[in-house]
Amino acid sequence: MPDNRRFLLVRRPDGAPVADDFRLETGPTPDLAEGQFLIRNHYASLDPAMRGWMDDEPSYMPPIPLGTPVRASTVGVVAESRTDEFPVGTWVVGLNAIEEYSVSAAGGFSQAIDPAMVPSPTNFLSVLGAVGMTAYFGYLEVCKPNPGDVVLVTGAAGAVGSLVGQIAKANGASKVIGIAGGPEKCARLIERYKFDAAIDYRGKSLDDLTAAIAAEAPDGVNVIFENVGGDILDAGLNNLAMYARIGLCGLISEYNNAGGKTGARNIWQLIVKRASLTGLLVADYVPRFGEGIAQMAAWMQSGTLVFDEQIDEGIENALPAFLKLFSGGNDGKMILKVAP
Amino acid sequence: MPDNRRFLLVRRPDGAPVADDFRLETGPTPDLAEGQFLIRNHYASLDPAMRGWMDDEPSYMPPIPLGTPVRASTVGVVAESRTDEFPVGTWVVGLNAIEEYSVSAAGGFSQAIDPAMVPSPTNFLSVLGAVGMTAYFGYLEVCKPNPGDVVLVTGAAGAVGSLVGQIAKANGASKVIGIAGGPEKCARLIERYKFDAAIDYRGKSLDDLTAAIAAEAPDGVNVIFENVGGDILDAGLNNLAMYARIGLCGLISEYNNAGGKTGARNIWQLIVKRASLTGLLVADYVPRFGEGIAQMAAWMQSGTLVFDEQIDEGIENALPAFLKLFSGGNDGKMILKVAP
Repeated sequence: MPDNRRFLLVRRPDGAPVADDFRLETGPTPDLAEGQFLIRNHYASLDPAMRGWMDDEPSYMPPIPLGTPVRASTVGVVAESRTDEFPVGTWVVGLNAIEEYSVSAAGGFSQAIDPAMVPSPTNFLSVLGAVGMTAYFGYLEVCKPNPGDVVLVTGAAGAVGSLVGQIAKANGASKVIGIAGGPEKCARLIERYKFDAAIDYRGKSLDDLTAAIAAEAPDGVNVIFENVGGDILDAGLNNLAMYARIGLCGLISEYNNAGGKTGARNIWQLIVKRASLTGLLVADYVPRFGEGIAQMAAWMQSGTLVFDEQIDEGIENALPAFLKLFSGGNDGKMILKVAP
Repeated sequence: MPDNRRFLLVRRPDGAPVADDFRLETGPTPDLAEGQFLIRNHYASLDPAMRGWMDDEPSYMPPIPLGTPVRASTVGVVAESRTDEFPVGTWVVGLNAIEEYSVSAAGGFSQAIDPAMVPSPTNFLSVLGAVGMTAYFGYLEVCKPNPGDVVLVTGAAGAVGSLVGQIAKANGASKVIGIAGGPEKCARLIERYKFDAAIDYRGKSLDDLTAAIAAEAPDGVNVIFENVGGDILDAGLNNLAMYARIGLCGLISEYNNAGGKTGARNIWQLIVKRASLTGLLVADYVPRFGEGIAQMAAWMQSGTLVFDEQIDEGIENALPAFLKLFSGGNDGKMILKVAP
C-alpha cells in the first residue's frame, strides 16, 4: 500500500491555531480488520466547528486527541475492503480526518454516495452534506419560521449562511437580511444569493450595527440564524420582534479568543421580546437527512439554490486553508483537495 | 379629599438607586373624570423589575417618566368613584404607583378582588399576583417541564423562585435544586420550601458554582428557572442536560450595573446541549390568570404551597425597602404598606 500523509494535531491551540500546533506526518496505511474498509480521501471539509474540536473542553464531541489527525468530513473512494457493504470503488462520505487514507467500517460514520447525482462529489461536503443539512434543518426546525417573517442571517456569505438565506426566501420569508464582512461579500449576498439586504459589519460598532439592522428591519426581525456571536449577536438582540426565534448555529467570533468567551450581553432583550435563543446541531437530524438531501437537490436542479465551493489544493495547505474561515478569506464552502 | 403622598422618580439612577433619585411629594388628590375611580392604596408591591422601568431604555414597558410616581402594583380600596363598575369600598389590585391614592378607570389595569378568598389582601400582590403568575406560567409554559426533570431555580429564596421550586415539585420534578445567598436562606429552601438541595452562591467562583451544581445534578439539569444572570447563569449553562430549557425570568445581578451588562458568556453550551434560553414575561398570560389563580389558591389551601411576605411600613421607607431586593435583605415577597 502507498504511504499515508496525515495532518496531526500535536498541541492545543491557544487562540488562533499556528503551524506548531500541527505536524504533517507520513506513515504506512493501516491494516484492515474484518468489516473495515480503507478510504482514499479525495476531499476534506474545512469547517469552523473543527476549531472547537481542537480544544480540551466538554463539547458535543470529544476533543481531537493530540497526536491524531484533525477530524473532518471527507469524501473519497473505497481503495481496499474487508466488507461486502463497501466494495472497492464505492464513493463514500463520512466523518474521518485530514489524511490521505482513512479506515472506516460498516455501521460507522460512512455513507455510500452516488456522485452522478451532482456536478461534483464535493457537493456531498457542501450543499448535500453537513453544511446543507445544518442550513436546512437548523432554519426550518429550530428557527420555526412563519410566512412573512423578516429573517436576519449572520455569517451570511459563509457556507451555511448563504444557504440559509436562500432557503428562507424559498420558504416564504418576506425579507432576508445578511451580515457579512466587506463590500464584495455583501454584493455577492444580493447579486448571487438573492438576499434582500446586506450589511457590512466591518468598521461598525455595536451601535452602528444595531442601527444598520434597524434601518433594514424597522419592525424588528422575527428570526435570526446566528453563526457569529459577539457584537453581531448583540446587535441582533437589540432588534428582535416580539416572540422572535434565534437559532444558534455557531459563534465563530469567539472560537479563537484565548482570552475567554464574549457570549451574549443583551439577553435582557429575550425577556423584553419573549424571544428564544436555541442551540442547534446537525447531528440531531441524521435520521432525516434523506428528506433534506432530496429537497436541497430539487432546489439545486430548479435553480432556487446556488452555492459556492472554494477548493484549496494539497494536504500541506490544510492550515492556511482552515484559517481563511476565520479571516473571511474564503468564497464559499472551504474544501481541501487531499488527493493529488 | 385628603392629601396624597407620592414617591416620585426625579432622576434616572446610575447603578444602584440612591435617595436623590427620588422625592416624596405631598399634593392634592386629583379630580376624577367620568368613568374613573380613586384607589386608596393600602399596599404596594416592590419588585426587581421596577429597577428596569427607572432606566430610559427600550423595554417591555415605557420608562417611568421623570417627575411621576414610581410604577408599582398596588392593592387598595375604591375611595371615590365615577363608574358603576367600581363602587366605593371595592377592593382592587392593579398596576398603579407608589402613592397613597391612584386614579384608575374601568377597562384599565385594575381588577376587583375578594379579600375574603385569602388570609390577607397582600396575597394578591404575591402568590395570587404577578409574582405567583410569573412562577406558575413561567415554569409550566416556558420551561416545558417533563415528569422526572431535574430543575435548577436561581434566586430561589426570592418571591418568584420559592414558588417555582414548590410548583416544580408539585408538577413531578424528580429533584429541585435552589441557589440562594447565605446559609439562612439555603436552610429555608430545604426546610420551608421543600427544595431537595440548596447551593449558597456567596463566596463561590464560577468554577465553584459549576462544581456545586454538578455535584447535585451529575447528569445535568433539564430545566433552569433563571432570575439572576452573571456567574450563576453561566454555571447553570455549564451543567445543562441534553435539550434543556432555560426560562429567563430576570437578571437581577445586572440591573444595578452602571458599567454594562454581563449577559451570558457560556451560550456555546446551548449548542453543545441543543438547549434553549427563552425570555418570559407574565403579561403574556393575563388572559389565563383565572386558571393560574385557581390552581395556586388550591395549592395554598392544600398546604402544597407555602410563601412568605415581608411587609415594610411607610411610603417614606420605599427606597430602603426596594433596595433589600438587591442586597438579599428581604425574607419573602417585598411589600410596602402605604396606608397607615
